[in-house]
Amino acid sequence: MLKTMLENVRKRCPLIHNITNYVTVNDCANILLACGGSPIMSDEKEEVPEITSICGGLNINIGTLNKNTIEAMFAAGKRANELNHPVVLDPVGAGASTLRTETANRLLEEVRFAVIRGNISEIKTLALGNGTTKGVDADVADRVTEENLAEMAQFAKDFAKKTGAVIAITGAIDLVADGEKAYCIRNGRPEMSSVTGTGCMLSALTAAFVTANPDQPLEAAAAAVCAMGYAGELAFERMSETEGNSTYRNHLIDAIYRMTPEALEGGAKYEMR
Amino acid sequence: MLKTMLENVRKRCPLIHNITNYVTVNDCANILLACGGSPIMSDEKEEVPEITSICGGLNINIGTLNKNTIEAMFAAGKRANELNHPVVLDPVGAGASTLRTETANRLLEEVRFAVIRGNISEIKTLALGNGTTKGVDADVADRVTEENLAEMAQFAKDFAKKTGAVIAITGAIDLVADGEKAYCIRNGRPEMSSVTGTGCMLSALTAAFVTANPDQPLEAAAAAVCAMGYAGELAFERMSETEGNSTYRNHLIDAIYRMTPEALEGGAKYEMR
Amino acid sequence: MLKTMLENVRKRCPLIHNITNYVTVNDCANILLACGGSPIMSDEKEEVPEITSICGGLNINIGTLNKNTIEAMFAAGKRANELNHPVVLDPVGAGASTLRTETANRLLEEVRFAVIRGNISEIKTLALGNGTTKGVDADVADRVTEENLAEMAQFAKDFAKKTGAVIAITGAIDLVADGEKAYCIRNGRPEMSSVTGTGCMLSALTAAFVTANPDQPLEAAAAAVCAMGYAGELAFERMSETEGNSTYRNHLIDAIYRMTPEALEGGAKYEMR
Repeated sequence: MLKTMLENVRKRCPLIHNITNYVTVNDCANILLACGGSPIMSDEKEEVPEITSICGGLNINIGTLNKNTIEAMFAAGKRANELNHPVVLDPVGAGASTLRTETANRLLEEVRFAVIRGNISEIKTLALGNGTTKGVDADVADRVTEENLAEMAQFAKDFAKKTGAVIAITGAIDLVADGEKAYCIRNGRPEMSSVTGTGCMLSALTAAFVTANPDQPLEAAAAAVCAMGYAGELAFERMSETEGNSTYRNHLIDAIYRMTPEALEGGAKYEMR
Repeated sequence: MLKTMLENVRKRCPLIHNITNYVTVNDCANILLACGGSPIMSDEKEEVPEITSICGGLNINIGTLNKNTIEAMFAAGKRANELNHPVVLDPVGAGASTLRTETANRLLEEVRFAVIRGNISEIKTLALGNGTTKGVDADVADRVTEENLAEMAQFAKDFAKKTGAVIAITGAIDLVADGEKAYCIRNGRPEMSSVTGTGCMLSALTAAFVTANPDQPLEAAAAAVCAMGYAGELAFERMSETEGNSTYRNHLIDAIYRMTPEALEGGAKYEMR
Repeated sequence: MLKTMLENVRKRCPLIHNITNYVTVNDCANILLACGGSPIMSDEKEEVPEITSICGGLNINIGTLNKNTIEAMFAAGKRANELNHPVVLDPVGAGASTLRTETANRLLEEVRFAVIRGNISEIKTLALGNGTTKGVDADVADRVTEENLAEMAQFAKDFAKKTGAVIAITGAIDLVADGEKAYCIRNGRPEMSSVTGTGCMLSALTAAFVTANPDQPLEAAAAAVCAMGYAGELAFERMSETEGNSTYRNHLIDAIYRMTPEALEGGAKYEMR
């Protein structure tokens, strides 16, 4: 199943319009190329409707938003909705500033998202108005654990039902849910949090997967989350004792580049809730 | 001949002002350092005339243009022209949006370029008004092939004559032409298209080469194109079976860093048309 | 002594707000993660007071300043001062344009800095109004040498006294001074100047070190400068004959990631003046 998701990315080479932060934008572009997609970046309000029109999907990441790029997010999001292109939201730092929280909330009201992907604190901020963030990282207090897993899976399903989007909450344990079903995913390595932008890269990857598999947004998002986590495991195996987070970033993107659909199917670790 | 071009870059350490996109800007800076040049980035309208004045050459790349940076492109381009600094244009995504196409066309009217470097779809858009782009990539329909090579070389020469600029069309086969002569270059690897920004990096490199060789823009641009393609070949040889596009990017820049003038002369594969 | 500085970074995980250029921002984020800190980037005037409030320290880098981000620098700097958060200034290219020089000078007037880190030409521009820059690099004429070391150490102390900030002048020999004492640091490799952003990365690192060691800004800044230089040495030892500046960048960040407090203590090469 997950295998087919990646096969379709490789076959259909989805062109993804990214309005994303300038911190991790290069890694987002390279991971899109690594998975078989194609990136284009544009955040000028005047041109984004046209750019999004020539693409298959849209990835909106509020990581270094400003007044100009916020306008571009709405213009592109609405145009993508008109064209029925899948749109992914990465609400980076929602909860860390009023501007980020309000922008993310307004986006949820005015744009229809196929997938919302964030850490638990960001998603709680959007769903409940009370996530506690540590900058752009999730707070320990919010963490998804074995103990609260059933409860958190239900939380993800409820928010999916409310928004109509697949909800992907990523962390040590990942949850990917629509209103009915939730994937609990146990791929990944703790070292991934020492690389800037693994979340941003995953959102870009998710946009490619849902664009190439438009009728299966839940499975496509779950496949992207498994692929990223499994890449983190493979990348970790390649690490020598003198290598650190910069080389780990390269290994991560390389692992997506080399990942076959069969390897993804075999490496994915998940159960349904 | 090509050898001398690189020798001059290493000897003269040209300082290049870049107004470029935020996706690949770090790679552009590092490839300029790798070849022996020195980068400075500035896109604030108010300061660009001064910044371009202290540099030897200017590289304008419209990859993530916005209203503010467009103004900076014109201000810097005009100042560079007054000072007789070579200016390179990389019309990223011309044809993909009205704003990009119009900005590139206006730049051609108001700024005198030493080199225009793009993929075939971008160059056709500027020359004929009818390139078909796939985002920031060239469309298959436009491709330079063995069959249409003579015709495309003539097309490049004609556009060079019209604009007064050296035209560099890069792809599987590269064409670098002034009004009289065209280099057909067969360096490079298909894997280069899986790294974001190889075109942007080449434009930055070209700016360094033409700045260090002001009287030979054709040979200088051809040397830059050969150097980039040959670096792609050397980088590919270094790839292991677990490495992918992220590591390939590092190998590419490393190969420029290590390239001697003699190696470039020996590795360049081209014929004149 | 220096050992404790790094231990505190690893223990306290300082969250650093960065208003920095888009050229080297990804490397700044990854080096902050490598040392044990945590980065957040934000340059929208409206949100920076809030973002800086949830952080422990602020890093202002004027590398690709524009009118909007300049306003954000002042808003964030003033808020950080109110909260007694340490603020680092990296006056990239001061002396290269009027806008950069004036912005840096106005920042010195209106914001209280814990550390000002730049190359000798940038610092001379701020202290004396007469540095000569070569773009964003120091001019040879300004260089700190064995011959002028006593004089330059006094210059650094005088400027530290005047500004109330620790002054870090980095180059072949580094000087880190407050009004009373100066560290002369001899770590580092000449190859570091072939990697874009080693200065920017060091400023981000310095922000993490002074934030985690708020009562010892001089020692903290000296430790950051030693750590960066020593990382440059370790990274160089890992270089093979085919590797160049792109791989060197990865090795550099990796070396910070792997550096133990003991290794820093053992590898630091400095004397007091």
